Amino acid sequence: MPDAFTRLASKSHDAMMNVLDFEIFAEIRILWRPTTACAWTVLDSYPSHSCLSTSTYLLDRIESGVSIFGSVGRDSTGSRAGQAAAPPRLSIPHFHKIHQPPVNLGTKIIAISRVYTPVTMIFKTLALLSAISSVSAFAPSLQRHAPSTILRVSTPINADLVTTESNIKKPGRTKPTIDPFNPEFELIQGVPYNDAFPNSTKEYKTATHAETGHELKVPFRRVHLEDPDQPSLDLYDTSGPRDVDPKQGLPKVRKTWVDEREGKFERYTQMHFARRGMITEEMQYVAEREGMSAEFVRSEVARGRAIICSNKNHLELEPQIIGRMFKVKINANIGNSAITSSIEEEVEKLQWSTLWGADTLMDLSTGKHIHQTREWIMRNSPIPVGTVPIYQALEKVDGIAEDLTWEVFRETLIEQAEQGVDYFTIHAGVLLRYVPMTVSRKTGIVSRGGSIHAKWNIFHHKENFAYEHWDDILEICAEYDIALSIGDGLRPGSIYDANDESQFAELMTQGDLTRRAWEKDVQVMNEGPGHVPLHKIPENMRNQLDWCNEAPFYTLGPLTTDIAPGYDHITSAIGAANIASLGTAMLCYVTPKEHLGLPNRDDVKAGIIAYKIAAHAADLAKELPGAQDRDDSLSKARFEFRWNDQFNLSLDPVTARAFHDETLDSDASKTSHFCSMCGPKFCSMKITEDVRQYAEENGYGVDEEAIQKGMDLMSEVYKENGNKLYLDDIENVVNPLEA
Amino acid sequence: MPDAFTRLASKSHDAMMNVLDFEIFAEIRILWRPTTACAWTVLDSYPSHSCLSTSTYLLDRIESGVSIFGSVGRDSTGSRAGQAAAPPRLSIPHFHKIHQPPVNLGTKIIAISRVYTPVTMIFKTLALLSAISSVSAFAPSLQRHAPSTILRVSTPINADLVTTESNIKKPGRTKPTIDPFNPEFELIQGVPYNDAFPNSTKEYKTATHAETGHELKVPFRRVHLEDPDQPSLDLYDTSGPRDVDPKQGLPKVRKTWVDEREGKFERYTQMHFARRGMITEEMQYVAEREGMSAEFVRSEVARGRAIICSNKNHLELEPQIIGRMFKVKINANIGNSAITSSIEEEVEKLQWSTLWGADTLMDLSTGKHIHQTREWIMRNSPIPVGTVPIYQALEKVDGIAEDLTWEVFRETLIEQAEQGVDYFTIHAGVLLRYVPMTVSRKTGIVSRGGSIHAKWNIFHHKENFAYEHWDDILEICAEYDIALSIGDGLRPGSIYDANDESQFAELMTQGDLTRRAWEKDVQVMNEGPGHVPLHKIPENMRNQLDWCNEAPFYTLGPLTTDIAPGYDHITSAIGAANIASLGTAMLCYVTPKEHLGLPNRDDVKAGIIAYKIAAHAADLAKELPGAQDRDDSLSKARFEFRWNDQFNLSLDPVTARAFHDETLDSDASKTSHFCSMCGPKFCSMKITEDVRQYAEENGYGVDEEAIQKGMDLMSEVYKENGNKLYLDDIENVVNPLEA
Repeated sequence: MPDAFTRLASKSHDAMMNVLDFEIFAEIRILWRPTTACAWTVLDSYPSHSCLSTSTYLLDRIESGVSIFGSVGRDSTGSRAGQAAAPPRLSIPHFHKIHQPPVNLGTKIIAISRVYTPVTMIFKTLALLSAISSVSAFAPSLQRHAPSTILRVSTPINADLVTTESNIKKPGRTKPTIDPFNPEFELIQGVPYNDAFPNSTKEYKTATHAETGHELKVPFRRVHLEDPDQPSLDLYDTSGPRDVDPKQGLPKVRKTWVDEREGKFERYTQMHFARRGMITEEMQYVAEREGMSAEFVRSEVARGRAIICSNKNHLELEPQIIGRMFKVKINANIGNSAITSSIEEEVEKLQWSTLWGADTLMDLSTGKHIHQTREWIMRNSPIPVGTVPIYQALEKVDGIAEDLTWEVFRETLIEQAEQGVDYFTIHAGVLLRYVPMTVSRKTGIVSRGGSIHAKWNIFHHKENFAYEHWDDILEICAEYDIALSIGDGLRPGSIYDANDESQFAELMTQGDLTRRAWEKDVQVMNEGPGHVPLHKIPENMRNQLDWCNEAPFYTLGPLTTDIAPGYDHITSAIGAANIASLGTAMLCYVTPKEHLGLPNRDDVKAGIIAYKIAAHAADLAKELPGAQDRDDSLSKARFEFRWNDQFNLSLDPVTARAFHDETLDSDASKTSHFCSMCGPKFCSMKITEDVRQYAEENGYGVDEEAIQKGMDLMSEVYKENGNKLYLDDIENVVNPLEA
Repeated sequence: MPDAFTRLASKSHDAMMNVLDFEIFAEIRILWRPTTACAWTVLDSYPSHSCLSTSTYLLDRIESGVSIFGSVGRDSTGSRAGQAAAPPRLSIPHFHKIHQPPVNLGTKIIAISRVYTPVTMIFKTLALLSAISSVSAFAPSLQRHAPSTILRVSTPINADLVTTESNIKKPGRTKPTIDPFNPEFELIQGVPYNDAFPNSTKEYKTATHAETGHELKVPFRRVHLEDPDQPSLDLYDTSGPRDVDPKQGLPKVRKTWVDEREGKFERYTQMHFARRGMITEEMQYVAEREGMSAEFVRSEVARGRAIICSNKNHLELEPQIIGRMFKVKINANIGNSAITSSIEEEVEKLQWSTLWGADTLMDLSTGKHIHQTREWIMRNSPIPVGTVPIYQALEKVDGIAEDLTWEVFRETLIEQAEQGVDYFTIHAGVLLRYVPMTVSRKTGIVSRGGSIHAKWNIFHHKENFAYEHWDDILEICAEYDIALSIGDGLRPGSIYDANDESQFAELMTQGDLTRRAWEKDVQVMNEGPGHVPLHKIPENMRNQLDWCNEAPFYTLGPLTTDIAPGYDHITSAIGAANIASLGTAMLCYVTPKEHLGLPNRDDVKAGIIAYKIAAHAADLAKELPGAQDRDDSLSKARFEFRWNDQFNLSLDPVTARAFHDETLDSDASKTSHFCSMCGPKFCSMKITEDVRQYAEENGYGVDEEAIQKGMDLMSEVYKENGNKLYLDDIENVVNPLEA
């Protein structure tokens, strides 16, 4: 199979299919993995857009380098119509070890390589293809960098950055904005990139867009390491151009792309372009960021399984992609309310969010200066911005939900579309007949948008106007290329209400709305819960995939218990990691202030870090190619006592360093071969390093017999050396208790 | 079926079996629940101690009040010998709605009640039986308290208690202890119980031990509520007697129990007593705490599926139980090192840990005054204390691992046994032949105990002395009733190393050691990983259950990614919630300082809260009866805008309140019908409350037609009231932006 890769490298994607002698190269998703066995569902034939197939099979993967696969079965229960389908029948047929090429089992065929799972192979192959082309792939696993200058600046810690330390903002409200057209941005405490990420440099890959010749500059972060085996590791970077005056706004990188497309197409959406076979600048850009082929990106967008949120008026955008086959993304919410916050603070939260890794941002403002707040956010956001337009519409009718009309709502959509909003959350699935289903709930309707629509529905006893005007909404979205994030207005607000009738009734309607949007080439994702206990999470994912035809799922957590206000970034990170590992494409963060108040800057950071953890844990669980490289690099640094690398590779280098320094802050300890947990006598890392080093120096590999020999010899060496097991300079380290 | 319960109430447990017309009342465990369907494994017939059965069946439970169940199958692959068994075959047979009594399907029969899952029913039934007996059950769901005095003291917030706020300790080391026999305990900042838990009272249920007539005082926490429907909720409480001078130590509540048993039995362990059919004071005590019957506790202890860690010299202990059929427990680690910490600080961490809910404590001290530190901890601990005796043994040979001998280790075990240590972590599974398996790892051996044994093994080229002397160790444990926590010295220290050969080799040896311990009536749990990505967690649980005969599993996290030092309480809470939902009985906490330094008081709290969340999320996922009561109460308070109740029911009331007050701190806001997130116009909770209130006042139930009628009428009422949708006093709330 490695040979097949080599042969593939010079061929097109379609040619690859032939080389592997497949009728269809099946795409698969991970359903669950209760044991070593993995359950997969064959979703679709690639690259066609045929609807969901629910054929299932179980695939057992073992670590020894031989994959085992079972035959593909079919299931008649996988209907996605009217009601919750029974779970697919799972069966483990007898397994076959494959040392010969995969055989054709019928119309659905899965390729199994010797060391890769099918998903891995899809990614690796496509990544390889893109690496071969004129630009280098982003995926760190595929790239060995030439040694580059390692920044060895001993950066002092910026105390502002440390979470849960001295930097906690004092309770209190911010100063309201005086002139919304001229905010006092000088109040923003900008954080230098290198303070947040010591020894990292922000870099750009350049690529030429095949069709237009436009040059694409795709950002990434390079962490420079003290590891002779690996001088650097490259990471996905969302931070956007830094050190830009917010009053000027970010550079309009998409201007030429958009201008040249203007007026040439029936509809203006990435999905429309993708279905016409076009690879846009945006598609190639995200392909570079993800380390995938542009053709794969195109096909996923065409299929509706991934979306590129990119309003043609948001020219400052660095495009990214939301979809199950890509890195899991996270969204941060900001926005003022009638009670608190200012424009300056919101822009600061935007910059802060992108610094720490937010992939998209929702501006949920409901307070003063709603238009101008959004304007400043749009002009300074390198990431897609979403809104819930009903909030502003309600402002326009003085907060009286029943006074809302389609005309007011439409006007609001266009106003926001013109500003460049990349996706709209619209709760069109809150139908009149679903509202009574919530009355016996513990916590009723907890979605703001949902409750506004519910109130309107009840008052007028008419169907939800967003549902009634869905086609009109689609026309607007198609014109600007705004993605629809179909809201879950009836999501559960408590464990008690999870997975109830009203929630799933709305989800089914979300599916109908999704298919209607696709008919007009409008990109869609579906919003999901909420509060859901662990054991009820998989049903949410399964229903969404089945009922909404695999449009990206975008969930709020879910929170796995109600009992921890103040810590709901944790209760929800648990649920988020789980649902994302099952296929959710984007996670809406939850901050420690959830249920309690509006998050401040530090809450935003705490929420983002918790969600970067959840998203990454899911990428690992999905075995996304390259995802584990960062873990491996960090663990190697840990094992080799390269403390600086350990800090710099972490999600929050400054906090990691500060926590370490709190116990043991001498410079010596950064390179000493023990740490403050165990002290010099106890470091468990040291012994294995000793054993391994000896084996290496004496030419022994990992073959067991050779190692045994090495150990025998080492036993003697130890004794000869006076049983010295630790570093010679241990004696020089000051023990404060002795001092 | 409710009738059956009534009839059962006056009958014995065995009689219940007859009433329900069962041959065998099967016990089941949750394997996984990927969908609405639940997969269970029938483990054992109750109350016999027969070995693992792997018959499986799928049970679909729907919310509508009718349970559905499938037939029981058998599986030939469920061997628990030498190697990882293939996953049990799962099949969903056709379902039967049962409105008639369950029918006998063969030798294994599962009872299905109309509203309870089988697990629920076992618990509920047993809880009910115990409630009927002379003492009242703890389980809050089974008890409606008579209205009691509600404490309405408006407690000012103790700023010391707020995590991530002003209370963060400044970096720096504590003052070393001057006289270990006379520590300066006055330095401890004791925290009043009511500061931590406003409107809670610490109470005791009294029960009389059937056999001896001893009076048992079983602690719990009662949260007094402003809810007319529910004046209070009772919670499990680990805090122990407060306001006791540490120099005096806690009251010796177990003295008479232990004294009277002394010298009367061949062996002195709870397992020995349980196997002889005795229900000890400890068993009845934990039964009261858990809301289970004492007989059920006895049978679980006899079976080895649960343990009561209770050294006969730890007389200050308030007994508790660790087992899969009970609430998931959490352990907090404390202990000084050569580098940092003092006796005073360790005792303070103990008190702090029990306050926030640690169920057991491990003293991992390796620094100065190791014996006296432990002595002060034992005399002040109401919860079981565990140690890793090899640490102190190593101190005795000046830190030279190869100088360790069985004699030194034995002397240490007896020294600690005499002090009252309740469980020993011993890494007897680190066999000589397993050490080379770790050489090709990314992070080698990360367990301190494991690395000490590994070093000794290699140096001497002899088998692990703890393994060789396992029978001698068992004799000591049997004499004092010390539980063995068989260490996982070869646990993975990175994602890369997860589930590798050495880890599972040791786990299999842990199983051998477990069975040998049970032969001598010694209680056992097994320690588990470590660093494990989400998709590899289930295999750990399954192997442990199979290879270690269902002895309680006790895991460290696991951490689901390596990339977040500084936030590993979160990376690991994700793994912990998952593995506990699959059956892990106790979770060893991880603090934000993991990998970086020794935790201070605030880190300890952060770790405990994260793990209370994980444990509770797992209790919910397992549908442990009564577990959801706290969620339901809190969510009801949230929906009804009872802010104080919402705070007081949370895991950390003070932090929740402080976070809320940060945005909106007027007293009015505590009772106002909106919160700071949305402001008065937007509160989504309000509309549902309006609808529901109207329906109730007008006598409409939740029947859809009736509700529709209510809504029709309400639509009119709304209009008549001038479309007033919110509280009349909204106008009185100050909007700071307008002010």
